[in-house]
Amino acid sequence: MESHEALSIPRLGEAAHASPLNLSEVHGDFIADFVPEDARVYYNPGVQAIRAALDQGEEPLAFEVAGPRRKLYFDPKADGLSAAIVTCGGLCPGINDVIRSLVMELWHRYGVRRILGCQYGFLGLTPSWIEQALNLTPEMVDHIQWEGGSFLRSSRGAQDVPTMVDMLQRENVSLLFTIGGDGTTRGALEIVKEIERRGAKIAVVGLPKTIDNDVCYTEKTFGYETAFSTARDAVMSAHTEARGALNGVGLVKVMGRNSGSIAAQAALASGEANFVIVPEVPFELEGPRGFLEALRARLEARRHALVVVAEGAGQSLMHEEAEILGLDKSGNKKLADIGLYLKLRIADFLTNIGMEHTVKYIDPSYIIRSVPANAADSVFCLKLAQNAVHAAMTGRTGIIIGYCNQHFVHIPMSLAISGSKRLDPDGPEWRAVLEATGQPTVMINH
Amino acid sequence: MESHEALSIPRLGEAAHASPLNLSEVHGDFIADFVPEDARVYYNPGVQAIRAALDQGEEPLAFEVAGPRRKLYFDPKADGLSAAIVTCGGLCPGINDVIRSLVMELWHRYGVRRILGCQYGFLGLTPSWIEQALNLTPEMVDHIQWEGGSFLRSSRGAQDVPTMVDMLQRENVSLLFTIGGDGTTRGALEIVKEIERRGAKIAVVGLPKTIDNDVCYTEKTFGYETAFSTARDAVMSAHTEARGALNGVGLVKVMGRNSGSIAAQAALASGEANFVIVPEVPFELEGPRGFLEALRARLEARRHALVVVAEGAGQSLMHEEAEILGLDKSGNKKLADIGLYLKLRIADFLTNIGMEHTVKYIDPSYIIRSVPANAADSVFCLKLAQNAVHAAMTGRTGIIIGYCNQHFVHIPMSLAISGSKRLDPDGPEWRAVLEATGQPTVMINH
Amino acid sequence: MESHEALSIPRLGEAAHASPLNLSEVHGDFIADFVPEDARVYYNPGVQAIRAALDQGEEPLAFEVAGPRRKLYFDPKADGLSAAIVTCGGLCPGINDVIRSLVMELWHRYGVRRILGCQYGFLGLTPSWIEQALNLTPEMVDHIQWEGGSFLRSSRGAQDVPTMVDMLQRENVSLLFTIGGDGTTRGALEIVKEIERRGAKIAVVGLPKTIDNDVCYTEKTFGYETAFSTARDAVMSAHTEARGALNGVGLVKVMGRNSGSIAAQAALASGEANFVIVPEVPFELEGPRGFLEALRARLEARRHALVVVAEGAGQSLMHEEAEILGLDKSGNKKLADIGLYLKLRIADFLTNIGMEHTVKYIDPSYIIRSVPANAADSVFCLKLAQNAVHAAMTGRTGIIIGYCNQHFVHIPMSLAISGSKRLDPDGPEWRAVLEATGQPTVMINH
Amino acid sequence: MESHEALSIPRLGEAAHASPLNLSEVHGDFIADFVPEDARVYYNPGVQAIRAALDQGEEPLAFEVAGPRRKLYFDPKADGLSAAIVTCGGLCPGINDVIRSLVMELWHRYGVRRILGCQYGFLGLTPSWIEQALNLTPEMVDHIQWEGGSFLRSSRGAQDVPTMVDMLQRENVSLLFTIGGDGTTRGALEIVKEIERRGAKIAVVGLPKTIDNDVCYTEKTFGYETAFSTARDAVMSAHTEARGALNGVGLVKVMGRNSGSIAAQAALASGEANFVIVPEVPFELEGPRGFLEALRARLEARRHALVVVAEGAGQSLMHEEAEILGLDKSGNKKLADIGLYLKLRIADFLTNIGMEHTVKYIDPSYIIRSVPANAADSVFCLKLAQNAVHAAMTGRTGIIIGYCNQHFVHIPMSLAISGSKRLDPDGPEWRAVLEATGQPTVMINH
Repeated sequence: MESHEALSIPRLGEAAHASPLNLSEVHGDFIADFVPEDARVYYNPGVQAIRAALDQGEEPLAFEVAGPRRKLYFDPKADGLSAAIVTCGGLCPGINDVIRSLVMELWHRYGVRRILGCQYGFLGLTPSWIEQALNLTPEMVDHIQWEGGSFLRSSRGAQDVPTMVDMLQRENVSLLFTIGGDGTTRGALEIVKEIERRGAKIAVVGLPKTIDNDVCYTEKTFGYETAFSTARDAVMSAHTEARGALNGVGLVKVMGRNSGSIAAQAALASGEANFVIVPEVPFELEGPRGFLEALRARLEARRHALVVVAEGAGQSLMHEEAEILGLDKSGNKKLADIGLYLKLRIADFLTNIGMEHTVKYIDPSYIIRSVPANAADSVFCLKLAQNAVHAAMTGRTGIIIGYCNQHFVHIPMSLAISGSKRLDPDGPEWRAVLEATGQPTVMINH
Repeated sequence: MESHEALSIPRLGEAAHASPLNLSEVHGDFIADFVPEDARVYYNPGVQAIRAALDQGEEPLAFEVAGPRRKLYFDPKADGLSAAIVTCGGLCPGINDVIRSLVMELWHRYGVRRILGCQYGFLGLTPSWIEQALNLTPEMVDHIQWEGGSFLRSSRGAQDVPTMVDMLQRENVSLLFTIGGDGTTRGALEIVKEIERRGAKIAVVGLPKTIDNDVCYTEKTFGYETAFSTARDAVMSAHTEARGALNGVGLVKVMGRNSGSIAAQAALASGEANFVIVPEVPFELEGPRGFLEALRARLEARRHALVVVAEGAGQSLMHEEAEILGLDKSGNKKLADIGLYLKLRIADFLTNIGMEHTVKYIDPSYIIRSVPANAADSVFCLKLAQNAVHAAMTGRTGIIIGYCNQHFVHIPMSLAISGSKRLDPDGPEWRAVLEATGQPTVMINH
Repeated sequence: MESHEALSIPRLGEAAHASPLNLSEVHGDFIADFVPEDARVYYNPGVQAIRAALDQGEEPLAFEVAGPRRKLYFDPKADGLSAAIVTCGGLCPGINDVIRSLVMELWHRYGVRRILGCQYGFLGLTPSWIEQALNLTPEMVDHIQWEGGSFLRSSRGAQDVPTMVDMLQRENVSLLFTIGGDGTTRGALEIVKEIERRGAKIAVVGLPKTIDNDVCYTEKTFGYETAFSTARDAVMSAHTEARGALNGVGLVKVMGRNSGSIAAQAALASGEANFVIVPEVPFELEGPRGFLEALRARLEARRHALVVVAEGAGQSLMHEEAEILGLDKSGNKKLADIGLYLKLRIADFLTNIGMEHTVKYIDPSYIIRSVPANAADSVFCLKLAQNAVHAAMTGRTGIIIGYCNQHFVHIPMSLAISGSKRLDPDGPEWRAVLEATGQPTVMINH
Repeated sequence: MESHEALSIPRLGEAAHASPLNLSEVHGDFIADFVPEDARVYYNPGVQAIRAALDQGEEPLAFEVAGPRRKLYFDPKADGLSAAIVTCGGLCPGINDVIRSLVMELWHRYGVRRILGCQYGFLGLTPSWIEQALNLTPEMVDHIQWEGGSFLRSSRGAQDVPTMVDMLQRENVSLLFTIGGDGTTRGALEIVKEIERRGAKIAVVGLPKTIDNDVCYTEKTFGYETAFSTARDAVMSAHTEARGALNGVGLVKVMGRNSGSIAAQAALASGEANFVIVPEVPFELEGPRGFLEALRARLEARRHALVVVAEGAGQSLMHEEAEILGLDKSGNKKLADIGLYLKLRIADFLTNIGMEHTVKYIDPSYIIRSVPANAADSVFCLKLAQNAVHAAMTGRTGIIIGYCNQHFVHIPMSLAISGSKRLDPDGPEWRAVLEATGQPTVMINH
């Protein structure tokens, strides 16, 4: 275990202004408290891990606790203190909750009266588009959380970094909030570096958005719960279709390029899935211990089966088979959709063994992405945004707001993009899936 | 900080039988793992707290991690291994998910074929009622999670402990699962003691049920999220009513005898609440800094207001005022409903200051209690039940299954009933409420 | 059967302007058609009724079909053609859908660019408030249908009629749309008469709003379906509570001052109600054939029971008993809540006969009123508003838009307020309730 | 207009047994009434149409009103009176409500104690499967309505008619209820004819199931409202996706092989659709007045667009183009999916004109089919089933239960399959779509 003493949070400068928040530093006075400057929580709460590290004189990984500080870097009473917000990448439930809460917190708590809503992602920070940025007010955003999508619209892809920083400076933006995934955090980090290079005083704080819940070091990202809850409905539809037909197979593909989290949770929430197939756990289709034989056994026993697959699963499988089968490029490309691929393979297999059957395939991705946040995600978004504003006002920059062991925390952007969180095949989540589905522990023949 | 070395988990005896679960103890083999016997997590992940304790040679509070162990106390291959399940106290979303998952796990994973579903709570463990216990099977419980309430019905109150243990012994029950709140855990602990006194070999494991989320040492209990999500809808109804009328006041009373958790979360989830009133934070109605003047200010500024109150709030206030006003007993009793009391006081106050107004009061309690679990709670219930079965099969007894820093854990019943969890007026949850509502930090005149 | 030749629709004058709508009068050209001026549908489609009337030389009641006409009274190209919208009375799902569709239709189809949104009901047509009327645009109302309540707020009660007409004239309003119930229609009719007295050219068209679905001559009013659908959820909560307890009685009071429609539909939709109690069908509590004995029988047979009562039921009963019991005025007043009254009477009765029991009472009224319209009601609201605009543009006035045998129709306000629609104790709706619940056909002792 | 005097309803024989239903024939006695034998309602309530027909001595089309009669053909007190239920074809919301209500009505109202639930459609009436028919009881079906799909499972396709009648006779079935679409009604009619040929006494009553609402002569079929309500959610998802991107196009394909009803209603319910494309109204893609140019105009004006298409739309178009483009058979087949075809054509077109864009395509069919019925559909299903039982008990046969001008009615199977109901391009439904969307009245170039 490496030492993490170096996990310092970048700051723009000394925090010298008093916070306008009417909070306390006294316990027991029935007034909510500021967060002490140095509050930290361990990332891994395991007793053995922490003691082992400490016994060797190492500091286990710990994160600074987010929240309002008594002293700010930016003067909330300064005229024209300006913020900007961008939303990038694919839709995710809760984006509007985050936008709304950023605006409410900036406006009502810190008195910020100029909040630029830059439209269409980083494109909104380029010259022609920044002209069209919205001047966000509490009235404008008051009800946006009841609709899905992004009030600020979105786009994918990077823009020229020096140009974007030019615009931030031209518009006198002091606080930039980026709502987006890994790519966005990478882009934001480039902006942070360019700002630092110029010695500008602009705090950049990221609010991680990934429907797959695969951001490193953060236990949970917004929209994820809404996503798997909505996915559950699609899973239940597939179950209903499967049960309604003789040897009916319901097959649902859910989001998860690298992570089977949504697939696992949606399957657990349904209580009905018989097979969950994820990128983290290898499997084979053919052979006596492969998936298809396990499916056959299930159908023979119960006449219907329910399969949930994450979109990132089985990619290597498809490529291998494509080579063996000598498929051409376009065929190959088509196969890269694991849902359609499995549908074909299951249908072929059941036809070959002479079993009358029906396969119903559901791909609910856009429906899942575009719903409004559920209540729990709304609360999470609200707190996330509050903490992002707190962090930026103290001059912290180059961080995202994470969540760890019941605390919102500051995670350096550089650390956040150092990998992606995945389902642990040895861990309790996958174990719960195996127990709930009864699927074979391994579906590999060797 | 006291030392917690003594936090031992009671066992019925040596775990000598191999688990039938097809899990692994090897990392990296893509097979989910058994939990090591001694895995523990710290209760408070704060760096400063843990280091301070360790520096003083003390062991910070830590809980044993729940999950399947390689060795069991009960022989899963033994003929007639029997389990019993009871559900006690008020309804809570997710009870049926828990029942279902207990049955599925016992039956499919550990091969238990006799699972008594005792009806109407502890009453179901008395002579006349145990005859009518259901013999639960996977088929019987397959779809019960889509309806609210308890498939096993419920009742309040205790029954004679020796009689109940007589029945457990007569029916050869080895595994007893109690689903209930504090009172149930107290009752279960009495049963555990009587079992111990008799030297009987019956494991008793509790699955904590409290819609208020106020169980000590456990981060979260099932049904709580569904409850505040459903409460959000009632809060939004009150908001809609308030906005629809001139100086409209929407007032919602939600569950929470000791804890303002549901009130806080429902208010945060709505994004619209202007006042949240909870048992943990004292307040006054009258006076220049009291609630009523704050409400007047809000109405003058915006013409409508939304108030969320926890049922346990303001109890002392009502008693004091009752004395001052010389109310008789029945009047007093009636006033003990803080919702109705506030409704009257608000209406009186606004009438007295000559402000035309409408007060709409909503008490959604039964509607909240009786809905089915949402997707996140369903997953939580499923894992909770899996872990309860794992614990009982290893002979652990006298514990409830808690949740702490991303791990399900074993909490001794004696510790679990030593107090109740409350909202911390100094903590981040209450702070988020203050920031989101903009309500006065204190509503006390002195 | 009286003759209905006289059922003429008031007009402001000759319709001389061409409609801007791009419709056709040719069948089979794949272009939707204008409605012929004289299209009418019979109110009662029964063969026997129509033939009997015709045989006697009478004209059965028939309504003019609503919809766009080729010729308009108001010139859509006239500068400054102005409309006004008011919403009066209690909330009802769909008000915002109606407002939105009125605005969309006026603006996009007829080119009306000045649409006053008068706030707080008829109050909004008084001098001080008309100043604050909103200038409605498509942008303002684009998303209001996703929230319940009224975007234009509401109030109860009448205002001075000449003053309101003064304001309409001062503001040059040509088209007034009133969204409200019976009281509103009465008020609107007074306005129509005052307008006529002055010889002013203002069309007044009512969009009937009654959550109870009790408007005369119209098959269905908006919000009703959403209301009973939402009520069903409360009924199911009561059922869940009832089933969860020993001799549990679930009791739900729903809207319906004069009509048991919502009670009947919510009960039917739940499929679980055992008793439905409505204003239209008399019943007794006591005696061998009274409700309480029937309830006892149900509980003895099944251990739980579900009762749905309309708020207007049993009023005479309560007054009679109040006299017998010598209750004072305030007690009497309290008893006028049939829900609370039944709760007490049931609990007393079961206590007296020594049956352990639990009674759970739910009054979901505000929750039902304040939800957004469901999909079917949204469609209904949209068409209702389109037809109201069509009617007003042709100079029709003093009418409400009704719905009759698959057609939107014009109903004179005077006819609409001549009575209120009630559940027919002899008819198919009540019969379906009796069949579904199995409750005694009569609960009267004589 | 042809005369419809001949619209007679087939009967098995004289109705000589008294109904056990405790109903009345007296108006005003507060007891619900039996339906008079000869009650009928006109199909078309239009005044002009009815008078014109009568003036020419013709009888306008009218249907017998459904409901309980005083006299029955089958003796409800006969031992062993047996019924059978089959569900055929694709899933549709409400099937379980219908099954449940058939069982409840047969069991509780008419005392029928043997109700065979034949599984997998007509397959369930063949020798090997009828053995596995379920013996349905109220307990078995008590909660099935809360889940989608069919409790009795389903299959497509016909079975040998004499064999099925053999089985009905062997099992002594007197009442057969078929739940299914056009194909099922055709099959049921063959069974009716075979029964008649044999002089057997088996009543066959159909409960029309078509999610598209395209059954002739019936205003509404069950599940349709739930279907378009669920489709609305998908339409709103597409809208959210479209608005979230620069020149975003949301495209949703909904059910409707011959009828654009669901497309129209879902679009109206969303309030956001810009284009609705249905089988009943021809359109062209290319050319200055074609769909693609209209789409371009919309995007240039508003930067996003929402298109709803019925699956049966544009079939001829695809075939024509396939010929022009010289596509081979398999390519042609692929193009027959209008959703995918439009997606490709839109993307190509926008690429060709150099407009940056995103097209998001959603096909929610299985999700729509498999949800439980909403409250309104539940009520409809319940009444439909009650009326089917009433009809069968009187010995009526060879009919389906329809709904017409607020009355459930008897429609001869032969008439029901004589065509299919479609959206009228001249009628009010399509007109409402044109008004709400603002799409061009015609999208044809000539």
